Amino acid sequence: MSEVNMSVSPQQQSAQAARESRVESRAEPRNRRPLRIAIFGFGTVGSSVARILVEQKPQGLELTHVFNRGVERKRVDWTPASVEWSEDADAVLASDADVMVELAGGLEPAGGWVRRALDAGKSVVTANKKLIAYHGVELERLAAARGGHLKYGAAVAGGIPVIPGLEQGLAGDRIERIEGILNGTCNFILSKMEEGAEYATVLAEAQARGFAEADPTEDVDGFDARSKLAILMRLALRVEVDPEEIVPRPITAVSAVDFSYARDLGCTIRQLARAERAGGTVSATVAATVGPMLVDLHSPLAWSRGTENMVIVSGHYGGDVVFSGHGAGGHPTAVAVVSDLLALAHGSRRVEIPAAAATVDGEFEVPHYIRFLVDDRPGIVAEITGALAKERINIRAIMQKAGYPQHALPFVVTVEPCKSSALKRALEGIRAKDYLLEEPLDLQMLE
Amino acid sequence: MSEVNMSVSPQQQSAQAARESRVESRAEPRNRRPLRIAIFGFGTVGSSVARILVEQKPQGLELTHVFNRGVERKRVDWTPASVEWSEDADAVLASDADVMVELAGGLEPAGGWVRRALDAGKSVVTANKKLIAYHGVELERLAAARGGHLKYGAAVAGGIPVIPGLEQGLAGDRIERIEGILNGTCNFILSKMEEGAEYATVLAEAQARGFAEADPTEDVDGFDARSKLAILMRLALRVEVDPEEIVPRPITAVSAVDFSYARDLGCTIRQLARAERAGGTVSATVAATVGPMLVDLHSPLAWSRGTENMVIVSGHYGGDVVFSGHGAGGHPTAVAVVSDLLALAHGSRRVEIPAAAATVDGEFEVPHYIRFLVDDRPGIVAEITGALAKERINIRAIMQKAGYPQHALPFVVTVEPCKSSALKRALEGIRAKDYLLEEPLDLQMLE
Repeated sequence: MSEVNMSVSPQQQSAQAARESRVESRAEPRNRRPLRIAIFGFGTVGSSVARILVEQKPQGLELTHVFNRGVERKRVDWTPASVEWSEDADAVLASDADVMVELAGGLEPAGGWVRRALDAGKSVVTANKKLIAYHGVELERLAAARGGHLKYGAAVAGGIPVIPGLEQGLAGDRIERIEGILNGTCNFILSKMEEGAEYATVLAEAQARGFAEADPTEDVDGFDARSKLAILMRLALRVEVDPEEIVPRPITAVSAVDFSYARDLGCTIRQLARAERAGGTVSATVAATVGPMLVDLHSPLAWSRGTENMVIVSGHYGGDVVFSGHGAGGHPTAVAVVSDLLALAHGSRRVEIPAAAATVDGEFEVPHYIRFLVDDRPGIVAEITGALAKERINIRAIMQKAGYPQHALPFVVTVEPCKSSALKRALEGIRAKDYLLEEPLDLQMLE
Repeated sequence: MSEVNMSVSPQQQSAQAARESRVESRAEPRNRRPLRIAIFGFGTVGSSVARILVEQKPQGLELTHVFNRGVERKRVDWTPASVEWSEDADAVLASDADVMVELAGGLEPAGGWVRRALDAGKSVVTANKKLIAYHGVELERLAAARGGHLKYGAAVAGGIPVIPGLEQGLAGDRIERIEGILNGTCNFILSKMEEGAEYATVLAEAQARGFAEADPTEDVDGFDARSKLAILMRLALRVEVDPEEIVPRPITAVSAVDFSYARDLGCTIRQLARAERAGGTVSATVAATVGPMLVDLHSPLAWSRGTENMVIVSGHYGGDVVFSGHGAGGHPTAVAVVSDLLALAHGSRRVEIPAAAATVDGEFEVPHYIRFLVDDRPGIVAEITGALAKERINIRAIMQKAGYPQHALPFVVTVEPCKSSALKRALEGIRAKDYLLEEPLDLQMLE
């Protein structure tokens, strides 16, 4: 389709075209040669990206390179013969590809490749939540300085357009709170436990079906969701935070008895990532946390089942906006990657949302569910309620279901909205008691 | 904040700056003087847009003009003194404003103003679904030809970023179906009727609360949702259609008895706008319709209450993505407008989704609910089921609740998935029967 100058070699042509493309991508998007795309990392998502590019032939995009370690075992027969398969990252970085699609994940070596690509004036599209959460600000500055672009719509909630929605559709609001189910593995596990399955059984099933890693720590301990939350906080709450300041709580502490008590309270349990501006105002401190929480059965958060993701954005002007869908998996994530590539090809620019550095605390003021497991004896409730009273925490309900042995008795106290720090102090006060068979489990209750 | 050249008159300065801005908006977005914004139509949404611009002072945006007929009665005291209030559309069109925010609504005179603004190389941000549904393609061509931009994120589902989501986050997918609750008035009426209220009572309440017009035809007969559906079809299904080819069905035919039968079927009733590619393929014909339908109580569509909007986009690669939130109202709609303005100020470009002209039919293949109101006598069921059998439509259930008088007896037949045209022929076959007290009500059942 494109007219080519036959007097120069193909190499000269493509190098020249690559330069032109990088310049022209700032102006009119039409009638240019396609963006040349190098996929770094040909796993599930990389292969889905290639699949969409080959099947749909989106205008303006051309797959030219695939990089993977030991690339021969990755090679497929359905890509155009012109695609260069390589296990030499340096060679692909030095090639005439315009855009690196980074799908290797993790901080290194992916981060080094991304820096080198941006430094060379290429653009980068990535699904790497950890890299963006930890180094996104620096990488965006590098991209801007060198004339390239960095897009990461696939880094949070896969195929759900939360990032474009925040950047392009909600930038006019002042977002005050963000809550999300950002980890499909935890949602799969907890929604199965809600139906009565045991944690270990469901984890094994998730591993067998490819939803969970052999070492599930990143997911179940909340590190994955924390990176995603940090990214959303920058776009929604307009704060730059150190993800490590967000203290995650594992879902492994939740057991069948908690789902039973939750149901009695009209709730279920989900891993939530949430952050809000204290008092809705701009300040140098924001509250953020990740962990299992009680959600009302009538809340959209409770409707999210299996590996689905959901994000609720609460704006001062626009109220609540809910996004949900498939947050992970090759195809949904690839949709986000290809959409970012199309945006680059059409000259779409990010709406730069100004953000300020902020520190994170875990200080929310919400009702809590606290479940104790005790070797029962007289006076325990009096001691616990006394410890809560000392911190001026009001009790909402005390629940003790029949049918559990006295020497390992679970019971639940729910409390009216109180500061997380006050509850922590109250629980510290009874931590050493010998009747406690395990750490009390305190969960935020979202209303 | 901006450095100005003191050797030229303010008029010269701003005219020159306006020209520069229009040119520069194609290149780097930073360090330019703010976009000068003229609001056309200072009603609820216009006043909310001004409110956000004044309160939030979004970087790069400056409110400079407000046009309204009889502007004096609209003037407020909280906008900067520099804002020019005018009832002279020609003068504002000829001013140095860079962007017209068109909130007058309707085809004319709004359409004429928009054409003139685009023709003069200005950009336009509009919430006018009718104008975009009927003339969007032509107006976008005009904008492109003159170097301006046309954005209409507020035209569908107000504060919910469905349009940016489709353009920027889902462009990489092949969307096969779109279903939406796109009219808040109908959703308010039907969700109140679900709770037992009468149509006339709820309509009066909606009118009193400002959700419904004195003449509610546009809403309840489905014309409003049809315009919005036509816009979404262009972006999601990539077809350009004549909105008039989408045949809407009024919600006024739904009565209390239908909610009662729907509940027995595990469903409720909502006004839905839906469109899909026949067989998921690209063809010159797409199916589209707007009207009351039965939705499963477990479907997200049933969760949508009050004036909320919801859109479900079904992609070949990414699966279902759900968007929900406040689809109308001054503030949510204004968020979409200001977000579009920010995108313009930052040089963000639309991802141009190629679309082909297509004709619309109402041919879906879904189960149906058919409610009859008859003066009962022997043989009616035999006749009706015979008419259905003649079109090879399989009956799923026949339901007749006790407690209704024999001379005005409502009963329901549900049928297995059948083509809309076949059902239409079957019902034509019994239309003239004298035992029918009113037209049978047939509703699609979404599963």
